Amino acid sequence: MPKIALAELTTLACHALERAGASAEAARSTADGLVAADAQGLASHGVSRLPQYAGHIKVGRVDGKAVPKIVRDKGACVLVDAADGLAFPACALAIREAIARARTHGVAVAGVTNSYHAGAAAFHLEAAAQAGLVGFAFTNSPSAMPAAGGKHAIFGTNPVAAVFPRRNAAPLVIDLSLSEVARGKIMVAARDGKPIPEGWALDKQGKPTTDAKAALDGMMLPMGGVKGAMLALVVELLCCALTGAHLGFEADSFFSEQGNRARIGQTFFVIDPGALAGNDVFAERIEMLIAEMLKDAGVRLPGERRAKLAAAAAREGVEIPDALLKQVRELASA
Amino acid sequence: MPKIALAELTTLACHALERAGASAEAARSTADGLVAADAQGLASHGVSRLPQYAGHIKVGRVDGKAVPKIVRDKGACVLVDAADGLAFPACALAIREAIARARTHGVAVAGVTNSYHAGAAAFHLEAAAQAGLVGFAFTNSPSAMPAAGGKHAIFGTNPVAAVFPRRNAAPLVIDLSLSEVARGKIMVAARDGKPIPEGWALDKQGKPTTDAKAALDGMMLPMGGVKGAMLALVVELLCCALTGAHLGFEADSFFSEQGNRARIGQTFFVIDPGALAGNDVFAERIEMLIAEMLKDAGVRLPGERRAKLAAAAAREGVEIPDALLKQVRELASA
Repeated sequence: MPKIALAELTTLACHALERAGASAEAARSTADGLVAADAQGLASHGVSRLPQYAGHIKVGRVDGKAVPKIVRDKGACVLVDAADGLAFPACALAIREAIARARTHGVAVAGVTNSYHAGAAAFHLEAAAQAGLVGFAFTNSPSAMPAAGGKHAIFGTNPVAAVFPRRNAAPLVIDLSLSEVARGKIMVAARDGKPIPEGWALDKQGKPTTDAKAALDGMMLPMGGVKGAMLALVVELLCCALTGAHLGFEADSFFSEQGNRARIGQTFFVIDPGALAGNDVFAERIEMLIAEMLKDAGVRLPGERRAKLAAAAAREGVEIPDALLKQVRELASA
Repeated sequence: MPKIALAELTTLACHALERAGASAEAARSTADGLVAADAQGLASHGVSRLPQYAGHIKVGRVDGKAVPKIVRDKGACVLVDAADGLAFPACALAIREAIARARTHGVAVAGVTNSYHAGAAAFHLEAAAQAGLVGFAFTNSPSAMPAAGGKHAIFGTNPVAAVFPRRNAAPLVIDLSLSEVARGKIMVAARDGKPIPEGWALDKQGKPTTDAKAALDGMMLPMGGVKGAMLALVVELLCCALTGAHLGFEADSFFSEQGNRARIGQTFFVIDPGALAGNDVFAERIEMLIAEMLKDAGVRLPGERRAKLAAAAAREGVEIPDALLKQVRELASA
């Protein structure tokens, strides 16, 4: 795999989205987000999603020309309507508004409704961390996991992300989905004809299975059993009840071209440490905790690997599999 | 076990705390919180903690006469100093302030520093749910779990709680600690000489163990592996970096009489759904999700069991083991 410069990849991604029918602004912010994921080593959330995004714009599952707008604005809260468009421009607006409100009020919540796949959740929080603020991102997603004790998929894998800025180092970046494992791991086992451990998935009748193929026809299990299912419920309510967005089971899968407008939701929290114990205390407590964590040689700080990969990618570009790059080029010149 | 009326148990608990040296106000709010836990079937967070609380007041690990006060007040944020006192009065002040600020700004954060064991985390959110608001509670606790990849205990079991009010039903109440299992389960296995499953604990060298006794000398593992450890890190930072409280590894265990003033932290978020998509949308989305969840016969709504037990306890009283009740009576009349 040859390397491609980030700027070149971004331009290609932009063109691909515009050719599919996206506005220049929506294409730009989406391309930035996808390429940032590739730069951070998150290929599953990078330009590998472009064919899907472009396909959904073409068939009308996403309105590429939608302009996100603020539909509710009260104090430290703001609600953005993504208007069935791509999630990136709506999330960018939401986080910008949340940062401004957190500076005034100490904390802010920004919700996004009628939205779409938001890529790697932590991407949207980078601006908050750069501003010295703590940020949280939540998104729901098409149903893939049952409720605790349930036998049919209700919740999405419902990612949760958080950033905690540091004074002289890259921020701590926590970014995880609430499924026990990524679906990709089950797909690999199915391809190789291998069993999967119990606790990863249920079959379509809602029974525990170690058969990878039955798992793909069935549903994923939440991380940590009942506790993870409860956290997925919390994320679902944060992203839908506060915003009015579709619940995961009302949204069709992103992995097929046909389906409804997903209209899922994202919710962001931004907090100014200066409004509580203060920035000096905040920095001291974080560094104290990190020093204690690093006493164990096996501990890696969350976000460190992404930051290193992103720095290297900015200098040297990223590797994109040949077949995918060919597809991106075709979409860009179609 | 005979039943005892909640009012009588509360009075006994109050007297026990006052005899140990607590102020009337601190004793009252603490007794209310502990008895509420017993009423909800959470005996491990009920008056079973009284001997510990009373002992800590007597030896000076907690200042029973401390008066919590607001030490920082900016916009939608407030920081309460528990002043090394019992956690309940400080948390009550924090949540009261957070509710008032959420009504004005749509969202509020209240931190508590220099605090102590806060009982069942969701208890503090009841007032928010009654006010029709969404609430989150986080607390750190003395170190009991390693960081991801680590070999020594850093994080507490770091409970997370959330309430989502409903219009014509008890609120959804999510309340969980971030350890894979409660320590009590390992204690039972050790007592019975039985092994524990892998994934529950490490021995004191930081190696995985199925030996329950080695686990008790070692440390608990987070739920869901690396993901749970990352969530514990987030809770630790929310409760300490924002508030200035002690990190879990700076706080001595609550289970021994001797030790330092724990000075841990709690952080609460309160959100007004009326400031985002609005109360009608909020109620509709929650009921839609609940209806879908209840299509599976095996699904139980979080908080439902607690609410039923509490209603029964209000009518009939609660069962307290004879030995414990005897101990409470002794403390109350000492």
